Amino acid sequence: MQIVPIASYTVQIGSIEETLNPLLQALQYSTLFVLVDEQTEIHCLPRIRHLVEGAQLIRIPSGEEAKNIQVCQQIWQQLLDGHADRKSLVINLGGGVIGDMGGFCAGTFKRGIPFIQIPTTLLSQVDASVGGKLGIDFQHIKNCIGLFRDPLAVLVDPAFCLTLPDRQIASGMIEIFKHGLLNDLELYRDLLRLDALDQVLQTGYLARAINVKRSVVEEDPYEAGWRKILNLGHTLGHGVESYFLDSASPLLHGEAVAIGLIGELYISHRCFGFPQDELDAVVRFIKRWYPDVIIPLEARGPILGIMAQDKKNERDQLHFSLLKKPGEPLIDCIIEPELVEEAITYYNNQLSVPV
Amino acid sequence: MQIVPIASYTVQIGSIEETLNPLLQALQYSTLFVLVDEQTEIHCLPRIRHLVEGAQLIRIPSGEEAKNIQVCQQIWQQLLDGHADRKSLVINLGGGVIGDMGGFCAGTFKRGIPFIQIPTTLLSQVDASVGGKLGIDFQHIKNCIGLFRDPLAVLVDPAFCLTLPDRQIASGMIEIFKHGLLNDLELYRDLLRLDALDQVLQTGYLARAINVKRSVVEEDPYEAGWRKILNLGHTLGHGVESYFLDSASPLLHGEAVAIGLIGELYISHRCFGFPQDELDAVVRFIKRWYPDVIIPLEARGPILGIMAQDKKNERDQLHFSLLKKPGEPLIDCIIEPELVEEAITYYNNQLSVPV
Repeated sequence: MQIVPIASYTVQIGSIEETLNPLLQALQYSTLFVLVDEQTEIHCLPRIRHLVEGAQLIRIPSGEEAKNIQVCQQIWQQLLDGHADRKSLVINLGGGVIGDMGGFCAGTFKRGIPFIQIPTTLLSQVDASVGGKLGIDFQHIKNCIGLFRDPLAVLVDPAFCLTLPDRQIASGMIEIFKHGLLNDLELYRDLLRLDALDQVLQTGYLARAINVKRSVVEEDPYEAGWRKILNLGHTLGHGVESYFLDSASPLLHGEAVAIGLIGELYISHRCFGFPQDELDAVVRFIKRWYPDVIIPLEARGPILGIMAQDKKNERDQLHFSLLKKPGEPLIDCIIEPELVEEAITYYNNQLSVPV
Repeated sequence: MQIVPIASYTVQIGSIEETLNPLLQALQYSTLFVLVDEQTEIHCLPRIRHLVEGAQLIRIPSGEEAKNIQVCQQIWQQLLDGHADRKSLVINLGGGVIGDMGGFCAGTFKRGIPFIQIPTTLLSQVDASVGGKLGIDFQHIKNCIGLFRDPLAVLVDPAFCLTLPDRQIASGMIEIFKHGLLNDLELYRDLLRLDALDQVLQTGYLARAINVKRSVVEEDPYEAGWRKILNLGHTLGHGVESYFLDSASPLLHGEAVAIGLIGELYISHRCFGFPQDELDAVVRFIKRWYPDVIIPLEARGPILGIMAQDKKNERDQLHFSLLKKPGEPLIDCIIEPELVEEAITYYNNQLSVPV
């Protein structure tokens, strides 16, 4: 088991048997709740059921569409019905939606009751699990409503990912890749040379990615400044993700971030001299592991409209986190919408270039 | 002007001209929002309108019934429509509902944007204004959903109270009285000798009451322990308030707390020897300034049911904050429901005793 200590809690990487059991033994709680969705109830709950006997189950639908205030009200209602009090404990068993929304509901119920995050997707294990950002979507704006609040602990068991489809693994990998690009060049170079997708589930990769995030978050827990570097790829990525949310074939978060990463590194190249060969390497990596998705012309308006709502913006100007070169992030870069359109064109053009 | 510094912000007591203007000059904000209800738009907004030119107005209905998640969604929507970002500023102009709900909405919008509290009722000036407790009601449970978050500043201008009806003044006074009982015996004794209601609007009374709250909150900002003393009178009081909420003649918060105070000091007397003469003095004070409200027999079940949902409870036991004697509070007192019923009987009986 590998332990990454955060200021006020720990991320424990290892078998869930080894991590959850001693934690529950040590904690004094009045009532125990486990939040699952349709997927994690089937695939993940069986692995911890014997450890949480007597727990009350709260079930919600799967998927990002469920991450809204109506489902929050169902969760709060079930906490009420189950007599949750401030000594109760909520275990959020699932991916980013469960963690973000379950944490938001626990963090606001009676002004905050304790919760443990058990992320079960690669994405949530390396990203959402660290940093205390909780929230829900509102009017199609991702994480529009939320708060910062730390869990009691985050338990990361890579074994939960073994049953995930490749698309999900790749989606999570983009955050590991991004953390490497930001602050761990060895991790970045290792991933560029990756042979098979499931290699990324090794504890070493997870721990290094979580460590990058930990160090950034500890320096700036409330995203007053430096933490914004983690948004690399996410400004355009969120716009793309939101746009395709209502389409016949929505993208996974990481797939949208991969598109965002190409676009934003192109902007980094144009504005801050991000090296051409690194840009090419990133494009090759993303074309190898992620699906080709053309962004149609009519999508540009809506995508820019969604980006205009980004939390980082001020005075209606688009704010980006970019890279001068791998390992040298920049924050609060104000970028004109025209350049964003140009970046989308660049991204589309790369799809027709042979690998 | 009198300034009470809190750990991370200040409560400024004085003319709103003197306090708000320099603050707005000093702050760098991108957009300004003022949250009002039907009442404060008429009675309070005119006093600050010239200071907040260009601000976007968010209007909500008056009253506790509006303090719900539906109205929150209207506020969030208007913040979205008004292009609020993390550098925006929200001014909550109103009583407890505006402060609690406006603070909750600002504190969760984009994971938290800055806000200033301008409490306009005596109750909110001496109580809700200090301590960072924000929230809304859910399923008739008061403040069931919320969080702790500090405002940028709290501006207290007693002049806002001059247009309030006597019932509102008395409602606010009970919190000053409670703060005296808890930790400022001189304030408590002064109030027992009060001749006219409007005397309580003197800056001195407000500052002393706010100071008691400040010292308690600073010691225990997240209500882990000692801060619970502030709940004196509120456990039974909330039950009574919630019960009458749906009736033809709902009680003001402070009126319900006054009832709760008599009941809980009776319990304090029975369990912890709170002196009989002090109990008599409190009963006389409350009978002098507050309406006689009989609690009918059929109300006892519902009131106890609501109390069972109190945030202080653990393992379904009723937890009270009580008094050994004036100035000596106790927390986490577990009280049987039977004794609460006895306290309600005691309260009812006092109504028929001549002052």
